[in-house]
Amino acid sequence: MSRILTGIQSSGRPHLGNILGAIKPAIDLSKQPDNESFLFIADLHSLVSIKDGPTRREFTRAVAATWLAFGLDTQKNTFWRQSRVAEHTELAWHLECFTPMPMLNNATSFKEKSDRSSGPVNTGLFVYPVLQAADILLYDAEIIPVGKDQRQHIEMTRDIASAFNRQYDEEVFVLPEAQIDDRLMTIPGIDGQKMSKSYNNYIDIFQPENELWKVIKKVKSDSTPLEEPKNPDTDITFQLYSLLASDEQVAEMRKLYEGGNYGYGTAKKALYELILSRFATERERFNYYMIENPDALEAELQAGEEKARAVASTTIRRVRDKLGFN
Amino acid sequence: MSRILTGIQSSGRPHLGNILGAIKPAIDLSKQPDNESFLFIADLHSLVSIKDGPTRREFTRAVAATWLAFGLDTQKNTFWRQSRVAEHTELAWHLECFTPMPMLNNATSFKEKSDRSSGPVNTGLFVYPVLQAADILLYDAEIIPVGKDQRQHIEMTRDIASAFNRQYDEEVFVLPEAQIDDRLMTIPGIDGQKMSKSYNNYIDIFQPENELWKVIKKVKSDSTPLEEPKNPDTDITFQLYSLLASDEQVAEMRKLYEGGNYGYGTAKKALYELILSRFATERERFNYYMIENPDALEAELQAGEEKARAVASTTIRRVRDKLGFN
Repeated sequence: MSRILTGIQSSGRPHLGNILGAIKPAIDLSKQPDNESFLFIADLHSLVSIKDGPTRREFTRAVAATWLAFGLDTQKNTFWRQSRVAEHTELAWHLECFTPMPMLNNATSFKEKSDRSSGPVNTGLFVYPVLQAADILLYDAEIIPVGKDQRQHIEMTRDIASAFNRQYDEEVFVLPEAQIDDRLMTIPGIDGQKMSKSYNNYIDIFQPENELWKVIKKVKSDSTPLEEPKNPDTDITFQLYSLLASDEQVAEMRKLYEGGNYGYGTAKKALYELILSRFATERERFNYYMIENPDALEAELQAGEEKARAVASTTIRRVRDKLGFN
Repeated sequence: MSRILTGIQSSGRPHLGNILGAIKPAIDLSKQPDNESFLFIADLHSLVSIKDGPTRREFTRAVAATWLAFGLDTQKNTFWRQSRVAEHTELAWHLECFTPMPMLNNATSFKEKSDRSSGPVNTGLFVYPVLQAADILLYDAEIIPVGKDQRQHIEMTRDIASAFNRQYDEEVFVLPEAQIDDRLMTIPGIDGQKMSKSYNNYIDIFQPENELWKVIKKVKSDSTPLEEPKNPDTDITFQLYSLLASDEQVAEMRKLYEGGNYGYGTAKKALYELILSRFATERERFNYYMIENPDALEAELQAGEEKARAVASTTIRRVRDKLGFN
């Protein structure tokens, strides 16, 4: 049984890029019989950039509803809001006392973000990797699936944990392994760049139909006339369609593109309809948790928080013992 | 009713200098009918420098036993271990996200300590003032009695709290006032320098009699021969004696010094006996809490922790509401 931990950013409502690139792969991983997944919504981390309370609450709910809509099994796995388990911030303090400052000063993501910032950055951005280390070590996580840009943070977690273990000459913390998935798909946005909230080129599959159609209509295409054959391999609508359709559907669509007399508008309509049919259940469940029955969402999260706390409190007891806080 | 907050360092067993310079004045203040004192043992802060668990546990117990021995009224006031109230570290994280990094980089005490350090300092030293701000703001403290060297940290607390209040356009936090006590006595150590653990010149009034006598015998004196008159005003034994004796006793001792035929050894014996008689009750109570009935000490602290938690949890709820964590 491998214990896998994933922190889920809550800086917005998940879009198609998040869903195909991160959420579905993580849920697939959590379904494997040999895995036990710990998945938390990193709402404390979001405070570094988001200060508005109602915004954070909405984003957090939307993220939770998305994971539940996509079938995360909360019985087998553990799914919670970081801010509801006080052990995260407590352990962060303890670990800060074992983290040499130069380690944080040299963190690439901190350097990049503080260089890009117009004013002075807040201290949260600086100590962020220590909170992240606490998130991981609190659950004795063994495997952390991350993108390449996060590899350094997992290394830092290992370094901090090792310093602590060395100090007390005991394996107080499990050293986690980063699992870098190079196969991770980059999902194109409606302008062909990587789909991202910050590029405002994303597809929100949970939008009402008319709004969704408005977005799909804006998918970039070239000016090849209707009658002429079109190159599917350079067309964004086709790319997006391919990510969601069956092999047969893709082959058929390719023929239509190459045959001519098939317009981009028709292709977009097909994409729009595919999204609606492919995600019909998920859209329904999302609305169930977000609108029809918010209490059910809250209940799922609270049950997860109790499971998380049971693990976290065992670890923190072990830590406090070593530190003389018991 | 003024709410006064004091953080108590737990980096060692309190000595006579701590007792006369800090503990007794704080207890006197806490007795005033218009005051309500919040006094906490800053054991989380001690992790910046002390890593050994049993050492911290012993220091924490000794500090608690000293305050109780000197008659702190734990019914009227609130007395607890910081590490037992999880809201301290939780609020520290929230505040870090409102603390510009340059504020911490410019903290005098951080600059001094990191300049003095031989290796890289740990991150705990850097973020220490934010945890201190959390300690204060969590209890809506109005008055913080501090030495001059701590004035800047109270200013930082006010700045962080103001930034937070401004963000939410509401007085979420009470802005604390530093109360700088310039009259604070400096108690001389046995070598005449300021009594300090780091100078190893301190008097531990809770030591067994024979060990205490060994220390008092070492109080520095000049080489004036026995027969000759001695200058009480330059003598350390006399200074220490004066701090503990009644006016009559001091006047009498002055006469003896000035009359000649009175040796330093006799004066030291008088000082030793004065310590024993003056602190007879406190020595007894200290031993009661430390040795005879450690459970009574633990019970006092746990009762204090419940009182502290009741206040802290109310504040953190207010904070979480603003941040969208509720």
